[in-house]
Amino acid sequence: MSEKDLRALFLDTLKDIYYAEKHIYKSLPKMADAAGSDDLREAFEHHHDETERHIERLEQIFELLGKPARVKKCDAIEGILEEGKEVMQEYKDAPALDAGLLAAAQAVEHYEISRYGTLKTWATKLGMDEAAQLLDETLAEEKKTDEILSKIATKTVNAEAA
Amino acid sequence: MSEKDLRALFLDTLKDIYYAEKHIYKSLPKMADAAGSDDLREAFEHHHDETERHIERLEQIFELLGKPARVKKCDAIEGILEEGKEVMQEYKDAPALDAGLLAAAQAVEHYEISRYGTLKTWATKLGMDEAAQLLDETLAEEKKTDEILSKIATKTVNAEAA
Repeated sequence: MSEKDLRALFLDTLKDIYYAEKHIYKSLPKMADAAGSDDLREAFEHHHDETERHIERLEQIFELLGKPARVKKCDAIEGILEEGKEVMQEYKDAPALDAGLLAAAQAVEHYEISRYGTLKTWATKLGMDEAAQLLDETLAEEKKTDEILSKIATKTVNAEAA
Repeated sequence: MSEKDLRALFLDTLKDIYYAEKHIYKSLPKMADAAGSDDLREAFEHHHDETERHIERLEQIFELLGKPARVKKCDAIEGILEEGKEVMQEYKDAPALDAGLLAAAQAVEHYEISRYGTLKTWATKLGMDEAAQLLDETLAEEKKTDEILSKIATKTVNAEAA
């Protein structure tokens, strides 16, 4: 039987979300530049600052594990961010640009909510209470961001329909 | 200004999730075969049946729009399912296989929850009440599936730790 236990899976998944966060951090300024409304641009800028803290928290967890902070290519976030890029190209100057950007950003948030929820469950089970606490803080911020984006999305489609 | 309004974005995103659902439908039997526990295998089999209905509902919405049911390549689901395949390979016969499969499946569910939530908001705004109702039914089933997977995930890591 393989030695790949929950601890190994936790470390692999930590590397996956570390890669994802770094790529999200690079994408957010482009999404902010593309945004049509001030609300949406500010939401992306604010989340860019938050993402920097999320990366730092992941680095703290690598330290708690006594492991170097390394990335593992995350195909999921590559695909999700690729869809965001397509929206920026295909809907450039179009009335539905912001609605499309919001949908892309919410897909990113949901990926992160799923990953941080899973990692938190595993950290708790592995008795890594400090890591679980750090993961929970980020999870709460990702959920908050998703709620803010939902509110802007409703406002955006209302404005377009008006 | 481009003609790409909310209606165009709705149709594009419908094609994207139609592609995603078809690929999820093909992946679920492989994930069921790989699952170590009966609970998890049954959950994947049950969701496979549900996914067939989700595909049918999307086809109904294309009909309501008077458009042929067409797919649009969805890079996000390709990436997310690729991670599921990696887990099946890297964790084959490993103690953490089911935990990894669950994480992969929950990432799929969250992608769908994000997409159906967005599509439902847009359908309502576009005055497509029947489509909004169909999207809401699928959204509720995806959320339910995510909850079931969360419960199995807690049970799975408890069993592994025992």
